[in-house]
Amino acid sequence: MNLYGRDLITTQEWSRNELETTLDLAARMKRDRFADNFTNILQNKTFFMFFYNPSVRTRQSFECAATELGGHAQFLEPKSMRLKTATSAGETVEDAAKVMSRYAAGLGIRILEDQVSAYGEGDNLLREYAHWSDIPIVSMAHDKYHPCQGLADVMGWSEWYGRGPGKGVDPVVLQGKKLLVAWGHGALARSWCSVQEAMLIGSRLGMDVTLAYPEGYDLDPAVVEWTKQNCAENNREFGITHDPREGYHGAHVVYSRHWMSPQAYQNGEFLKKQEIEKALHYPDWICDGEKMKLSDNGIFTHPMPIDRGHEVTDEVASGSRSCIYDVAENRLHVQKAIMALTMAGR
Amino acid sequence: MNLYGRDLITTQEWSRNELETTLDLAARMKRDRFADNFTNILQNKTFFMFFYNPSVRTRQSFECAATELGGHAQFLEPKSMRLKTATSAGETVEDAAKVMSRYAAGLGIRILEDQVSAYGEGDNLLREYAHWSDIPIVSMAHDKYHPCQGLADVMGWSEWYGRGPGKGVDPVVLQGKKLLVAWGHGALARSWCSVQEAMLIGSRLGMDVTLAYPEGYDLDPAVVEWTKQNCAENNREFGITHDPREGYHGAHVVYSRHWMSPQAYQNGEFLKKQEIEKALHYPDWICDGEKMKLSDNGIFTHPMPIDRGHEVTDEVASGSRSCIYDVAENRLHVQKAIMALTMAGR
Amino acid sequence: MNLYGRDLITTQEWSRNELETTLDLAARMKRDRFADNFTNILQNKTFFMFFYNPSVRTRQSFECAATELGGHAQFLEPKSMRLKTATSAGETVEDAAKVMSRYAAGLGIRILEDQVSAYGEGDNLLREYAHWSDIPIVSMAHDKYHPCQGLADVMGWSEWYGRGPGKGVDPVVLQGKKLLVAWGHGALARSWCSVQEAMLIGSRLGMDVTLAYPEGYDLDPAVVEWTKQNCAENNREFGITHDPREGYHGAHVVYSRHWMSPQAYQNGEFLKKQEIEKALHYPDWICDGEKMKLSDNGIFTHPMPIDRGHEVTDEVASGSRSCIYDVAENRLHVQKAIMALTMAGR
Repeated sequence: MNLYGRDLITTQEWSRNELETTLDLAARMKRDRFADNFTNILQNKTFFMFFYNPSVRTRQSFECAATELGGHAQFLEPKSMRLKTATSAGETVEDAAKVMSRYAAGLGIRILEDQVSAYGEGDNLLREYAHWSDIPIVSMAHDKYHPCQGLADVMGWSEWYGRGPGKGVDPVVLQGKKLLVAWGHGALARSWCSVQEAMLIGSRLGMDVTLAYPEGYDLDPAVVEWTKQNCAENNREFGITHDPREGYHGAHVVYSRHWMSPQAYQNGEFLKKQEIEKALHYPDWICDGEKMKLSDNGIFTHPMPIDRGHEVTDEVASGSRSCIYDVAENRLHVQKAIMALTMAGR
Repeated sequence: MNLYGRDLITTQEWSRNELETTLDLAARMKRDRFADNFTNILQNKTFFMFFYNPSVRTRQSFECAATELGGHAQFLEPKSMRLKTATSAGETVEDAAKVMSRYAAGLGIRILEDQVSAYGEGDNLLREYAHWSDIPIVSMAHDKYHPCQGLADVMGWSEWYGRGPGKGVDPVVLQGKKLLVAWGHGALARSWCSVQEAMLIGSRLGMDVTLAYPEGYDLDPAVVEWTKQNCAENNREFGITHDPREGYHGAHVVYSRHWMSPQAYQNGEFLKKQEIEKALHYPDWICDGEKMKLSDNGIFTHPMPIDRGHEVTDEVASGSRSCIYDVAENRLHVQKAIMALTMAGR
Repeated sequence: MNLYGRDLITTQEWSRNELETTLDLAARMKRDRFADNFTNILQNKTFFMFFYNPSVRTRQSFECAATELGGHAQFLEPKSMRLKTATSAGETVEDAAKVMSRYAAGLGIRILEDQVSAYGEGDNLLREYAHWSDIPIVSMAHDKYHPCQGLADVMGWSEWYGRGPGKGVDPVVLQGKKLLVAWGHGALARSWCSVQEAMLIGSRLGMDVTLAYPEGYDLDPAVVEWTKQNCAENNREFGITHDPREGYHGAHVVYSRHWMSPQAYQNGEFLKKQEIEKALHYPDWICDGEKMKLSDNGIFTHPMPIDRGHEVTDEVASGSRSCIYDVAENRLHVQKAIMALTMAGR
């Protein structure tokens, strides 16, 4: 297996073997974080980070990752780049991508729902960059997917159900475990990318998946369909409920997070205000201690930042079964592994 | 003495022995700037810089410091981070700090008077980060203190009264010298942090301290009280004058700089405009050649940027007794020493 | 020949021997990009990048260059620095430059036509920094010149007329070749710096130079005069035409790019809107396949970003005789060579 040069737009497009190799390398990099054989992997090499949307954690973890591999990540904001769009002049993706391929070992792109005029445009942009680039394109979260978060999620869950954080990862421990992906209320209009990636990679690794959300908060039908297929291929169960409690029964991993509704875009506009108002009408949709008692001593997971008091109570988020900081730490390790596997050797 | 893991919020909270160890290491790092034993200290490690307020010199010197120690400093602007405050939703300091502790070797924070709604809030924020973080918090200037500037100041003054810049630092030479901290006029509303830190560390190291400012420009009473106590412990003199000339008599170090009045905050607002107007009414409060003649062949010091023509004349700022560039350079060396002592070894 | 400490504001101020040494080192760095003897040149050293104007390519290539030499480039935006100007208070260039000289190995400055109130002010600023700095000042494009682009241009052209990209550079192959610098239309108001530098360095290296532009689009008369002199010293021809086709006859290198008119500044304002409107009135001024047929199998060159469809057709820009990506890549290599020659050894 050779991942050199491969793009990572969603984990669904990597084989299970490739995902496991990445997780295994990430675990070794976590255990032996500054070992000599890791700190020279991107020595003197550059990784470009394109932030159409700002971010703290993603920027911190990617820039750390490059530094720990001996290289350097450049923080770039494409708004000052004036790329050509349907309505405005500017440099074509072809020109931008071809030049960047001469300079760097890889390119990360972050573009979320409020920077595009329709769901899927961010994904299209990543694929256009991937088409023209000679270097790997890595999603740093876009409107559809968030593969690095997905890998960090399953790495954290595997640690909690296996040997414990920092002791190595054996994804087989997730086989047959139940993942509940539950909508959370709050004054937010959050992307689908993190939850969709979690559904995909959880089901790939043999988990039962239950989606729970109020009527009107459907996710991308294609992603739901893929998740169903993944479950079917592993002989696992997939279900959807619109009850805020039901899905908790027997859950091993509880992922409670807000997401926007499919009505968020109208005539090319992202209706943030309207989404925020709507999302406050469902105060029942919070992960709390009472609901967690219904689970099978489940762990609480979240990609952060958390909207405490809306998506989840403090009691749960800071409780003894919360894996949030371990998952957040794992962003660093999986990203180092991805960069090492796809970008080293140039 | 082991400083590993220690926060640095003000020099007043470090022992005299700890401060001298830091100054000594800084002097060695200045003399032998790129020696092998220094350039690997933070190899592949990350230092986060949180700039609530922009800055050029502080950013330049901290980012250089990390680079020269073999690591990397990330330039982060928390305004895009939406931290939870009394009035707005957002990520808690607990969550932010706990995750950053997984990624980095240390965290620097800069937050000045115009980014808070009352004096002391910046200091509280640093202490909240220090509470939740597993990594050292270093002030890169906040509303109360500026420890790195204070260390750079006394390093520069010690060089000038000792063996000369770059020849090593023996803080004992400052014992019994007179520090004049004089208010300067100008279209500004500057923080108290630099002058307060200078008073504290100057008095710690055995200097006489005289404060000179127009009526109505009192500094933090608690800091003044600490300074008095420091002087008393060293059997040195402390005084306050409201005459623009009197304090110069016999001064060895003249620190002329503008600072805002205690009336700068009203109802949670920082009244910059009002402060600026008020500050222009005292044209006598400028450090000039005539006043410097009253001193004991004193040196002129300032943390920069200087408001030439208001705080000080060109004649003095660019004169043969100005130590401003040496002090500015020392920011780099003391910050390297601080990072080495508190962050290396993780 | 010792270039250590030298500023680079325009190639016209470096000797032909110095330019050839730089090109030769750039070619060796391109061929053997990550060789040990190159990756330690700026080890642990800092290069400051001052971006008065944003840029993607220039920032990417300079930051990569520092990384590949083992150092680090700091991305700085001086708008937050409040330097003293005729009308506003702030830090003097003297103070800023003297402190930065203590921290860094070199300083790059980018300041284009829309950040100054009259043509030439950007150049003056660079020279003021050069006056006060102890470290080399490198233009990263300013209102008059763009020396790094000029060097990348001739490196690319030499590769195409010599041994091929990446096979080394022998500038002698440009001797006697004809360079056409042609104005291009479009909704733009672009700087003179790139085309002026190309005229200067092309003529230095023995090329015939023809300028082609509509009446009213004269460039800096002093630069035109220098170009004429360079041509005369090499016994080469210099000409100006206002016909959009004529200059193509016999051209070996076709440089088609928009530039603003000399009327762009009025009363200290940069009239971008007016320039853009005017520039759209000349649709004939586009480099297309038909015009290229008039050339001597010429190559197409452009400093990018390209305004495709206005300055040049897609057919030509993406055609088999387009050297744009090689020239863009060469920015990296010539900048590494410049930094190595002027900044290493401190």
